[in-house]
Amino acid sequence: MTDVARIRGVLSPIVTPFDGDLRPDAERLVAHARWLLDNDVGLAVFGTNSEANSLSVAEKRALLDHLVEAGLPPSRMMPGTGCCSFSDSVELTTHAVKLGCAGVLMLPPFYYKVVTDEGLYRNFAEIIERVGDERLRIYLYHIPPVAQVGISLGLIERLLSAYGGTIAGVKDSSGDWDNTQAMLEQFQSEEFDVFPGAESFLLAALRAGGAGCISATANVNPGPIARLASSWESSDADDQQAALNAVRAVFQNYVVIPGLKAAIAHFGGDPAWGVVRPPLVELQPDERAGLIQRLEALGFSMPGLPGSA
Amino acid sequence: MTDVARIRGVLSPIVTPFDGDLRPDAERLVAHARWLLDNDVGLAVFGTNSEANSLSVAEKRALLDHLVEAGLPPSRMMPGTGCCSFSDSVELTTHAVKLGCAGVLMLPPFYYKVVTDEGLYRNFAEIIERVGDERLRIYLYHIPPVAQVGISLGLIERLLSAYGGTIAGVKDSSGDWDNTQAMLEQFQSEEFDVFPGAESFLLAALRAGGAGCISATANVNPGPIARLASSWESSDADDQQAALNAVRAVFQNYVVIPGLKAAIAHFGGDPAWGVVRPPLVELQPDERAGLIQRLEALGFSMPGLPGSA
Repeated sequence: MTDVARIRGVLSPIVTPFDGDLRPDAERLVAHARWLLDNDVGLAVFGTNSEANSLSVAEKRALLDHLVEAGLPPSRMMPGTGCCSFSDSVELTTHAVKLGCAGVLMLPPFYYKVVTDEGLYRNFAEIIERVGDERLRIYLYHIPPVAQVGISLGLIERLLSAYGGTIAGVKDSSGDWDNTQAMLEQFQSEEFDVFPGAESFLLAALRAGGAGCISATANVNPGPIARLASSWESSDADDQQAALNAVRAVFQNYVVIPGLKAAIAHFGGDPAWGVVRPPLVELQPDERAGLIQRLEALGFSMPGLPGSA
Repeated sequence: MTDVARIRGVLSPIVTPFDGDLRPDAERLVAHARWLLDNDVGLAVFGTNSEANSLSVAEKRALLDHLVEAGLPPSRMMPGTGCCSFSDSVELTTHAVKLGCAGVLMLPPFYYKVVTDEGLYRNFAEIIERVGDERLRIYLYHIPPVAQVGISLGLIERLLSAYGGTIAGVKDSSGDWDNTQAMLEQFQSEEFDVFPGAESFLLAALRAGGAGCISATANVNPGPIARLASSWESSDADDQQAALNAVRAVFQNYVVIPGLKAAIAHFGGDPAWGVVRPPLVELQPDERAGLIQRLEALGFSMPGLPGSA
């Protein structure tokens, strides 16, 4: 294996802006991505909170091209490339590798529910064999509350055994710390990076050898989350974690994607950010007002956000 | 509204054959489709049992083109065109309408689980508006055991009110007869065709004003299922239904798609039919042997199946 710099720390499943006709808005995406990078947060483009599964493969390819052409570093990108059809996953993954992305975040195929680890193994194996590129780094995406189809410890073990080096880690969005801890313990001797899917587990993960976190809230609170990742051994780490949790708790009162977009729209003074694609629905005016009120009560702000005064 | 012939009776979510490299096998698909049509079974291509969600949009477009170019009648086709991304759904639906398909079977977007009827309504409305074709006939696809996201009675009512004529019916694969009956009763005054998603409800549905059924088992037992649909008022209808149920019960011992393909491979003498795409796995030898033994014990056969002696 070549000695490539691994992508670690805090990443954000960056929310995808749309124009009034519901087309992806590449310019706003680039501006938001720059702001996240300026705050030491990497780009997990096309995650669940990016409405990635409301975008076609062609739309995702075009957006990724745009980010790279705008000069953003692929070494800080981990695009989501796992689709229901492995032919789609192969196309998108190949494209990401060619662009030099640090890794890809890969959902299992999530339509069919009666699937076995053998079937999931074959899906990932087909993708790896067909992409056929030594540079490929796959981060498995375990998010049973949404995908319903999960990534078991046994599946990880089998994939690591066959494709060690290519299988580079996991994002654990189970919300179950016991599961994250089991992943950290079972694969600690491997080159296998465990990212919990929420900053609420960031400190615990870093203390247990985790790689960082990939969290929706990093779209709106990147600086403080990244600061904890870089200063987790300092004496105020638990206080930092508590402050992150307080912000996260506000967003948990709302459907997360419209809530994140409403906050960006408000603090950036840019209402266009509020648009979501169906089947999601934007926050209603009273919900928006409640969200902002709760955030302001915490003294929350988004310093330097594009569009903000 | 123009007076177009509606697609009714028995349809099959036709299984998709793959070659050894897991590419769709258009020739075998055409041959199987012809056999179904010869048995009075229409073509719900790209249904759940077609492994439609393991195919890319481009693969589905190419297969549909191939079926039509082979001379099969689009008036007997109801392709599945509902994807997670409405941009994909629009592309595939537009293509199906241009080819003259009788209708399309439309899943709701199924990745995001916290969705409202308002969000689902917007998804279908966007698709209808963007396809923008008077010929479009949508059959909503309610399959909560797999998609998890369902189609409520309230959503149907709202869609019918805004897009009556375009919203032409529903496939109810809930497996819950009470739900099918509620659909039949609530929308009986509308031009709205209810297809249960299994032939086990065929007789009950026809007696209650249903349009037929769309059933996986019609891939292997098309003649007898179609015969009940055309003779459901005859005195032996209940006996016919019981015989259909006995065949269906055999398949229910196995994961359905590999089971159907194993039966076609066996009775057609064409082992290539056994191939499935990941995340599915073909039946194991002992499972195949058990399936065939159970079917033969019932005197089951597939007369005229392509490839069979």
